[in-house]
Amino acid sequence: MDKEPISDFFYRLQDEICQELEELDAYGRFHEDTWERDGGGGGRTRVLTKGDVIEKGGVNFSKVYGQATDKIRESIGVNGNAFFASGLSIVLHPYNPFVPTIHMNIRYFEMDDGNAWFGGGIDLTPHYIDKSDAARFHQHLKKVCDDHHPTYYPAFKHWADDYFFIKHRNETRGIGGIFFDRLAATEDISLEDRYAFVKDVGEAFMPVYKPLVDKHRNDNYSETQKDWQLIRRGRYVEFNLVYDRGTRFGLDSGGRIESILMSLPEYASWQYNFQPEEGSAEAETQQWLQKHIDWLALLDRPTPDEPIKER
Amino acid sequence: MDKEPISDFFYRLQDEICQELEELDAYGRFHEDTWERDGGGGGRTRVLTKGDVIEKGGVNFSKVYGQATDKIRESIGVNGNAFFASGLSIVLHPYNPFVPTIHMNIRYFEMDDGNAWFGGGIDLTPHYIDKSDAARFHQHLKKVCDDHHPTYYPAFKHWADDYFFIKHRNETRGIGGIFFDRLAATEDISLEDRYAFVKDVGEAFMPVYKPLVDKHRNDNYSETQKDWQLIRRGRYVEFNLVYDRGTRFGLDSGGRIESILMSLPEYASWQYNFQPEEGSAEAETQQWLQKHIDWLALLDRPTPDEPIKER
Repeated sequence: MDKEPISDFFYRLQDEICQELEELDAYGRFHEDTWERDGGGGGRTRVLTKGDVIEKGGVNFSKVYGQATDKIRESIGVNGNAFFASGLSIVLHPYNPFVPTIHMNIRYFEMDDGNAWFGGGIDLTPHYIDKSDAARFHQHLKKVCDDHHPTYYPAFKHWADDYFFIKHRNETRGIGGIFFDRLAATEDISLEDRYAFVKDVGEAFMPVYKPLVDKHRNDNYSETQKDWQLIRRGRYVEFNLVYDRGTRFGLDSGGRIESILMSLPEYASWQYNFQPEEGSAEAETQQWLQKHIDWLALLDRPTPDEPIKER
Repeated sequence: MDKEPISDFFYRLQDEICQELEELDAYGRFHEDTWERDGGGGGRTRVLTKGDVIEKGGVNFSKVYGQATDKIRESIGVNGNAFFASGLSIVLHPYNPFVPTIHMNIRYFEMDDGNAWFGGGIDLTPHYIDKSDAARFHQHLKKVCDDHHPTYYPAFKHWADDYFFIKHRNETRGIGGIFFDRLAATEDISLEDRYAFVKDVGEAFMPVYKPLVDKHRNDNYSETQKDWQLIRRGRYVEFNLVYDRGTRFGLDSGGRIESILMSLPEYASWQYNFQPEEGSAEAETQQWLQKHIDWLALLDRPTPDEPIKER
C-alpha cells in the first residue's frame, strides 16, 4: 500500500477532530507544537488545557521513519532496515467527573522487509459508570466493527479488556472498548480492508464521544465526586506509566517526552488504601471495573445489580 | 549473622521514628495496618495523612521469608531456596513546597545459599533547592558515612545520583543523598560492620530531616509555588512507577499494593510542556537537578550561580 495517503488521512483527521473538539468545548483552544525527529520525520502535537469541558486533552499526529535501530527491531520483532510509522493519538481528561476520559489511537507501521500493519482502538474511562452510556458506547463500536468483519467486535473488545487492565490492582482501566494491533493482510482480509476499518474507527471518535459530553457536561458534582475522579485518574497514570506499551516504548526509545506524556491528567491523586463506602456510587463503579463484561446485554436489561459476564 | 535482631532493630526504629514524626508534625497521627504475606512473614504499614506538616507520609516495616520463587531468584540473581528480607522504608510528602520530600530505606536480605547483604539510603527531593540546606544535608550524610568507611560517602553519593535519575527527563529526582545495595561482607568489611553502618543511616533519618522541617514549615507560599510542587511531585510519580526497582518488583511480584504505593503523593500534576520562567526560582531549581553536583563545595562558597561539578 502507498503509505503517504494513510499518513495524510491521519493528518487531516487531526485537523477535523481538533476543530470539532474546539466547537464542542466552546471555550478551549488547541496549542500546537510541531517537532522533528532526529533520523527522520516528526509530528504535530496539539494540546488543549483549561477549556470549558476539557481540563487537559491532547491530539497528536506523528509520522516518523528512517533506519530501524536494534531497539526498534527487538521491541517490535521485525528484521528490516527502514521503518515507517504514522499515527493519531487522542486522550481527553474532562473536568466534570461525569464526563468520561476517552482515548483513541490509530496507527500504521511498515518495514522494508514487507511487514505492514495497522493498530489502534478506542476505549472509555468513566469515573462513574453509567450503564446505559456504557452499553451504547459498546453498541456504537460494535457497529463500526460489524461493517467490516463479524469477528472484529468480539475479538477487539476482548483484546481491549486484556490490554487496558491494571494488573497490580486487578481492575480494568475503564469499560474498555476495542483494541487491535498488527492487523496485517491475511488470505481473507486485504491491507486495504484493514485501512478502511481503521479510517472508520478514527471517524467514529467524535460521534461516539460527543453525546457523552453533551449529556453530562452540566451535571452537578460534589467535592467527594471530584476527589474520586482524581483517584481514578491516579489509576490512569499507573496504567500509562507501568503498562502502556506505547508510553514505555516512547520513554525507552527517546521519543518526544511531552507528546508521549500529554496523556497524563492535569491533576491526579493517591489516597492510601482508599475504599469507597459500601453501597455508594463509587463502590458500584469499582464493581464494574472487570474484564469481559457483556455491556451489550445491558441494552435489553438496563439495570442489573451485578455485571453480566460474556459467555 | 543472626537475622532476627536486625529485623527487630528495624521494627523498633519504625516505632521511634513514627513517634518522633508525630511529635514533629504535632497534629497528624499514624494509621497502622498490619498485613501477612502468603508464604511467610508480613509487615506493619503506617501512614499519616493530612497532618500539620505532612500531607501524606508512610513508614513501612516488613519482614518476609519463605521459599524463593523463580521470579525472586531471577530478579535478584541468586540461587538458593529459602530467603529472608526485612526492611524499613519511609517517604514523606509535606504540604509546604519549601519543606522537601524525603525518602529513607534500610533493608537486609539473606538467602540460604550463603548470600547476605544490606541495602538502603536517604535522599532528598526539595521542590525549591535551598543550597545551604542541600550542602548541610550532604555534609550530615557524609559524616554518617565517614564514621564507617572513607569510600562510603563518595561511592554511595555517586550511586544515589545514578539511581534517582529520571532518564526520560534527563534530570535527577532531587538533590540525591546516598544509595547502596548488596553490601555484603568483604575481606576488609564484615557483615557486622555493614550492619553498624545501616543502623547509623536509619538513626540519622530524624536528625537530618527535622531541621529542614523546623526551618521551613512556616514559610509562606503562593499558589504558583504550590503548583510547582505538584508538578515536581508528578516527576516523583514518574520515577517511582517507571524506574524504582523496589516499586516495580513489588508490583510484578504481587506485594501489598497499598504499602508499595504509599510512596505516591496525595496530589500530583502534569502540565503539558511546562517550562519555568527564565530567571525564576523554579528555573534555578530545575538547573540544579543534575547528577554529580559537588554539594559540599557550597559549604565554602554558598551562592554560586552555576552548579559546581565533582572532579
